[in-house]
Amino acid sequence: MEKRPGGRSARVRDAVRQATLVELAEHGYHGLTVDNVATRSGVHKTTVYRRWTNAEGLIADALELARDEPWPVPDTGCVQEDLREIVRLVLRGFTDPVEGPIASAFVAAAVQSSGAARALHDFFVARLDQASAVVRRAVERGELPAPTDVGDVVRMAVAPVYYRLFITREPVTERDAERAADAAVAAARAGAV
Amino acid sequence: MEKRPGGRSARVRDAVRQATLVELAEHGYHGLTVDNVATRSGVHKTTVYRRWTNAEGLIADALELARDEPWPVPDTGCVQEDLREIVRLVLRGFTDPVEGPIASAFVAAAVQSSGAARALHDFFVARLDQASAVVRRAVERGELPAPTDVGDVVRMAVAPVYYRLFITREPVTERDAERAADAAVAAARAGAV
Repeated sequence: MEKRPGGRSARVRDAVRQATLVELAEHGYHGLTVDNVATRSGVHKTTVYRRWTNAEGLIADALELARDEPWPVPDTGCVQEDLREIVRLVLRGFTDPVEGPIASAFVAAAVQSSGAARALHDFFVARLDQASAVVRRAVERGELPAPTDVGDVVRMAVAPVYYRLFITREPVTERDAERAADAAVAAARAGAV
Repeated sequence: MEKRPGGRSARVRDAVRQATLVELAEHGYHGLTVDNVATRSGVHKTTVYRRWTNAEGLIADALELARDEPWPVPDTGCVQEDLREIVRLVLRGFTDPVEGPIASAFVAAAVQSSGAARALHDFFVARLDQASAVVRRAVERGELPAPTDVGDVVRMAVAPVYYRLFITREPVTERDAERAADAAVAAARAGAV
């Protein structure tokens, strides 16, 4: 959609995205409307309708932008430390008072909208690939056996945090997050992943 | 609420519950209304309003009944086989053409309603406790080290299935389910859970 990165089109897109995130944080997926995003962003309503169509389009675009943002993949030289940090980052992303409600709103949107579900899938595939680097490096330096399914080690490490947050709705501490990372590493060391 | 188990009150409750499940399967949480459940169950609308109040109340009661139903906790004498069977049961519960949409609707309801979230929490706490028996028995017969956090072994085994289904929205095979169970057992054997 952008003609010139950083140009007017990019500024409009960013304004709409910021407004989408604030609306999501305040009203959740069901309160997300093109009209409200247009008002909050100061972008003309017809422009928002033309480029983003509806709430699904707004969500998908916000996730696409989030997917391409750099995030701090750790590289401590120890896969257990790296994975602990990744799982802590995941947990903080959902418990942070500002970011948390937005991240939770994306998950909620995916439950209610197939378009949002596809966008969330693409987002997580990209994130899993980036996070897998810490496991790939561990295999390369002989810390974990080859072959190891590097994506599954990351899934095993982060899944219990999502499970507690969105399925069983149990509290999650940083210690729970670290224990999940440790267990994933132990399973990988045993050649079970 | 029941005055006599198996009496009129229990029959009404069961009819309302069955109607709730069918409505959930057909229309999802957002299509679940007291009016539709009353019509489908043949129970008078004022009765449904008085006893269940709203969609949240209908969901909570259906989950309470589901929580108390027996389910086949395996006991093969081998914790890896037991856990594999549990994770396969979880997966089938969501992929079954009849049961799957209902189970998914409960998860979706919890994302959108705090009352449904509390009911789902209570349901899962009960299920985790029942499933933990397979790990407790393994510790007792010396197959897994003591101390092992028996609940966390079950969480680790099932979490990747929920993660793929509801977060990353990736396909899940029975092999994926079994690998998650195997990894949880390997981590427990290594004393990491």
